[in-house]
Amino acid sequence: MIKVKGFKFSGISSGLKKSGKKDLGLIFSETTCNAHAIFTKNKVLAAPVIIGKELIKKNSIQSIVVNSGSANACTGKRGITATNKILAELAFQTNLKIHNFFPSSTGVIGSQLDYKLINKNIGKLLGSLKEDSSEDFAKAIITTDKYSKISYKKLKIGSSTYNFLAIAKGAGMIHPNMATMLCFFLTDLGFESKLFKKLINNASNKSFNLISVDGDMSTNDTVIGLSNGLGGNVTISEGSRSLYKVTSLVNDMFYDLAKLIVKDAEGGTKFCKITVKGARSEKSANIVARKIANSLLFKTALFGSDPNWGRIIAAIGSSGVSYIDQDKIDISIGKSLIVKNGVEYKKAKILNKLMKKDEIEIGVNLNKGKESSFMLTNDIGVKYVKFNSDYRT
Amino acid sequence: MIKVKGFKFSGISSGLKKSGKKDLGLIFSETTCNAHAIFTKNKVLAAPVIIGKELIKKNSIQSIVVNSGSANACTGKRGITATNKILAELAFQTNLKIHNFFPSSTGVIGSQLDYKLINKNIGKLLGSLKEDSSEDFAKAIITTDKYSKISYKKLKIGSSTYNFLAIAKGAGMIHPNMATMLCFFLTDLGFESKLFKKLINNASNKSFNLISVDGDMSTNDTVIGLSNGLGGNVTISEGSRSLYKVTSLVNDMFYDLAKLIVKDAEGGTKFCKITVKGARSEKSANIVARKIANSLLFKTALFGSDPNWGRIIAAIGSSGVSYIDQDKIDISIGKSLIVKNGVEYKKAKILNKLMKKDEIEIGVNLNKGKESSFMLTNDIGVKYVKFNSDYRT
Repeated sequence: MIKVKGFKFSGISSGLKKSGKKDLGLIFSETTCNAHAIFTKNKVLAAPVIIGKELIKKNSIQSIVVNSGSANACTGKRGITATNKILAELAFQTNLKIHNFFPSSTGVIGSQLDYKLINKNIGKLLGSLKEDSSEDFAKAIITTDKYSKISYKKLKIGSSTYNFLAIAKGAGMIHPNMATMLCFFLTDLGFESKLFKKLINNASNKSFNLISVDGDMSTNDTVIGLSNGLGGNVTISEGSRSLYKVTSLVNDMFYDLAKLIVKDAEGGTKFCKITVKGARSEKSANIVARKIANSLLFKTALFGSDPNWGRIIAAIGSSGVSYIDQDKIDISIGKSLIVKNGVEYKKAKILNKLMKKDEIEIGVNLNKGKESSFMLTNDIGVKYVKFNSDYRT
Repeated sequence: MIKVKGFKFSGISSGLKKSGKKDLGLIFSETTCNAHAIFTKNKVLAAPVIIGKELIKKNSIQSIVVNSGSANACTGKRGITATNKILAELAFQTNLKIHNFFPSSTGVIGSQLDYKLINKNIGKLLGSLKEDSSEDFAKAIITTDKYSKISYKKLKIGSSTYNFLAIAKGAGMIHPNMATMLCFFLTDLGFESKLFKKLINNASNKSFNLISVDGDMSTNDTVIGLSNGLGGNVTISEGSRSLYKVTSLVNDMFYDLAKLIVKDAEGGTKFCKITVKGARSEKSANIVARKIANSLLFKTALFGSDPNWGRIIAAIGSSGVSYIDQDKIDISIGKSLIVKNGVEYKKAKILNKLMKKDEIEIGVNLNKGKESSFMLTNDIGVKYVKFNSDYRT
């Protein structure tokens, strides 16, 4: 049974999704939480992101409300009003303040959010709150994800057992519109506020920021963490003995969810980890890995199980990283070295079998330094094009 | 009849292409030329590019030799030797120097170039040189281009008529390997050397540098211009009365070829011009246009005739241009305004018809300045994926 002390969940159908599937979710903590959120770097922001950025500053978040079925993005002032009306209704019915709530939306860009429909259902949403309903919430936030994405872990510190729950929805390749990545992380372990921010930032940098589905960036992407400290008396700070364990645990949870998101990429048939080492900095290693991950020629070769290293090395060279020396580049597929010093080492043909696997590891060694980074990505196949070229109605 | 005074051409089959199609071409001027070349910015360079970069510095190019069927890229020292052996054979048989020749290759990356096969055919190649054989040359340099790409113009200055010829091969979406864009520009009009460089650079910046087929960058891309001045006594310099006419003519030729390249994109079904205006600089306008042109979600929407402006505005926002204000963005398709101040202005549905055309114009106004830029691009359809995911044998 998934439970995080002091947190309740609900997920209902409000009618936003014409299919009648769940489309409205709520997370509710007994008390206000330590909260930290990371938002999309897109300059075009959905209304809930614009509002959420302000609300989180007041440091008194207690509840998160999420709708699927409409992104409430590019909806102008009407969109801002819509989100505010929903928060006001929640505040009214719970006798709390607007700044105790954090909003999130996902779905089609450009259509106005029917807040009246949502507000009619706020009573039902609040009435459905239960400690063990996190799966209902997870279902309410998905769009075209094939499955809901949940990671749940426990950790004993001192005499208490603390709970950690992260719920995400998929990024990319989403028909009919676009990628939105949402992640809600909840824990009943207490944290010193600055450290909690660092924890969420670092875990995101090592997971969600290292995935590339189709290279496009959403208007709604949000990662938010809430810690209510109701699991026991421990508060984690920089000096805490359990810090390493807690950090590893959260990093693992975020990484697992990032992997699930890539694996669930619509139209994708293969999962690929691209590791670049021998770089002068982690940043430049990531630039190279990202360039390969976003190369359409590489992604289609992956779909076709083609160990076409020419496309990989051309992507490496076009990454803009200045210190790259083509005569030093090694490339491997799985454990097989395919390119040594920029020249074919093993005939690509015999690697065809390796490329047919569902999970593929591409290794690049620039042989110019000691830093490394990686990207998680997927292939682009015929299904992707079909999904994403259909008219959006 | 296409002729440029003092230039001869040939295009033959050497056997590099297993199909038996033409794969070896030569351009030969009676005298050494004013020459200027622009190369790919990829850090991974094909052997002919590495060698060509050095040879052009000696300023005595008289002939260009091009093979298709093998890119001679990622071939290490053997690849360098191969190109040098070909140039040495040409120099030997013509009694010229190696630095009178400029090499170029296009085809599959990573396989060694069979220079012996080429050298066996140098005699035949030289023997086939004719003033009116430029179309044979154009055929010899293509890979999977559906047609050869030639632009030919004449201009009367004073008492003489001067000739301008540009021959290109396609960029991108090339099965079985990758994009290579080559352009050879020849004229019998004389130019002051610095001005000729500027002419070639500017015309390229307004054409080949504004196309995006799949966002990948080749190891072999080369644009080279040769001017032998044999058409008459005129030498164009900064003060020349004909400068504007000549510049416009060359700009038009390069633009026409760039357009042909995009239109011939393998698997592409639609041609799209994306214009961004109201920017604070031409550079930032181009960054925005390029981001849209490279957006896979946009490209698949284009394929599906879907006026999905959410994908366009999300690409604009994620371009990294800091001054963008989502509430000021206007978007049009053809002459129809679809987004005004970041919000839907006209229902996307009624624009479906417009999107079904073969040529589509997308207009973006950032309403933040007076500068503009554009990109020429194409859609990504099911055929593209099929072409590029097949195994490369």
